[in-house]
Amino acid sequence: MTFTEKLRASVQETGSTLCVGLDPNLDLLPQPVKQQFESREEQVSYFCKLVIDYTAEHAAAFKPNLAFFEALGKDGLSVFEEVISHIPENKIIIADAKRGDISSTADHYKKAYFDEFNVDAITINPLMGFETLEAFSKDETKGLYVLALTSNSGASDFLKQPYKNFESMSEYIADQLSKKSRFSDTHLGMVIGATQAEEASSVLKYHPEGALLIPGIGAQGGSISELEKALTHHTGIPLINSSRGIIYAGKDEGDWPEYVAEQAKSMKQKLSSITKKYV
Amino acid sequence: MTFTEKLRASVQETGSTLCVGLDPNLDLLPQPVKQQFESREEQVSYFCKLVIDYTAEHAAAFKPNLAFFEALGKDGLSVFEEVISHIPENKIIIADAKRGDISSTADHYKKAYFDEFNVDAITINPLMGFETLEAFSKDETKGLYVLALTSNSGASDFLKQPYKNFESMSEYIADQLSKKSRFSDTHLGMVIGATQAEEASSVLKYHPEGALLIPGIGAQGGSISELEKALTHHTGIPLINSSRGIIYAGKDEGDWPEYVAEQAKSMKQKLSSITKKYV
Repeated sequence: MTFTEKLRASVQETGSTLCVGLDPNLDLLPQPVKQQFESREEQVSYFCKLVIDYTAEHAAAFKPNLAFFEALGKDGLSVFEEVISHIPENKIIIADAKRGDISSTADHYKKAYFDEFNVDAITINPLMGFETLEAFSKDETKGLYVLALTSNSGASDFLKQPYKNFESMSEYIADQLSKKSRFSDTHLGMVIGATQAEEASSVLKYHPEGALLIPGIGAQGGSISELEKALTHHTGIPLINSSRGIIYAGKDEGDWPEYVAEQAKSMKQKLSSITKKYV
Repeated sequence: MTFTEKLRASVQETGSTLCVGLDPNLDLLPQPVKQQFESREEQVSYFCKLVIDYTAEHAAAFKPNLAFFEALGKDGLSVFEEVISHIPENKIIIADAKRGDISSTADHYKKAYFDEFNVDAITINPLMGFETLEAFSKDETKGLYVLALTSNSGASDFLKQPYKNFESMSEYIADQLSKKSRFSDTHLGMVIGATQAEEASSVLKYHPEGALLIPGIGAQGGSISELEKALTHHTGIPLINSSRGIIYAGKDEGDWPEYVAEQAKSMKQKLSSITKKYV
């Protein structure tokens, strides 16, 4: 099964384009989790597993963010592996790692995420050039989400600047990804910040078949109706990520996982006008 | 002791600007190491420790490359920690991680590398904007090496392109780093590819006080005399990295560490015309 086949199946089975971001911040873990376990590794592992259990019904994908696991120090990747092995097999797993390197370094990042951890996709930073994609390009069961347009204010330093013959570097990246897709077995998708739906549509038109990872909904306040408009002509399947807005719902409550499930369900419903196009 | 003080002291004590890159590729480990240990984790750990033991006399710094540790899977960061804790305290340790993210993700990368692993410096990818530096900016004992000019062919996709009012994006990055240095306790250095010494000098002039991490000498064949010329007016201390050219010297020999030591010594001597300016 190719990456896009798995992605489509996962969206169809759950009737959802929701991706749950796993950003386990020690300062924000629910009180009951902190009380139940002494070690932070156990806290993070248990917290993420419960979030997965209570949201899997409503989400097509999970996006663990490597920074939060590396911050645990030497056991971080061991906790990361525990958490991803708890995610049901039919879900898309995206390692949010934003790696971007070349030659044997890139080969080893590919070994890490495609072979060792065996996730479905990884986020990529293309600053060193499109050469950063090459090591990952031979696997039709995998996908890349390449940083194209982000929703932070710093996006104006590079990504939103006019570039070559394009109105922005983001457009150039999308255009190149579309061209390079012909020579890549691995699916080349994009990260597109959702708080800028207008700008997003001008980028999307350059790579209309690319799968999308869209952060910025939920806690960051992107508008779903604007996003829907931006996606009108897009055929690549979008995953809309929410992290904090879901996983820390009810963090001060004894039955916090119920709040987490409720938030995921509610977000899935809010996204239904977008999802219906792809199911 | 600030980062630049430690950097200067380390260069002075060793009389060397050499940085040894620790890129432990399982396919290239010396035969005796593979025969002595069954597990790849033990092989990598032992190999790196012996490289450190045999090169420390000749090197001011070590640069472990995270990709090669992550490629070991769940125990990768545990091996990484073992290796860096074996590096003598007076050496500069640069985590070659090329992380680049924002807000709480950046905070957690900072926690990982500055607090948990407690390395002296980390390499940073600024594509998401200079916001990527903020989480790291409050520690005068630490340094950042920000990707500015790389030596791969893909550098022409972004870094070498004309940008804003500058001849290249590399120049713009250097200019911004110089300006942002005034507001950063953490030292803001640059990664500058050494195979392009001519281009390098046009970038360096924008941030003349920035510490430099210069890959591309040795196996990648950058010219030392050209590099020396490019550094004529630069006051920031350079570290010149060599990985494969040193660590895999004599990999088929029983006394391979002797070859590693010999290569490091030879590289230190080749760099002496550059080093003498900073000692």
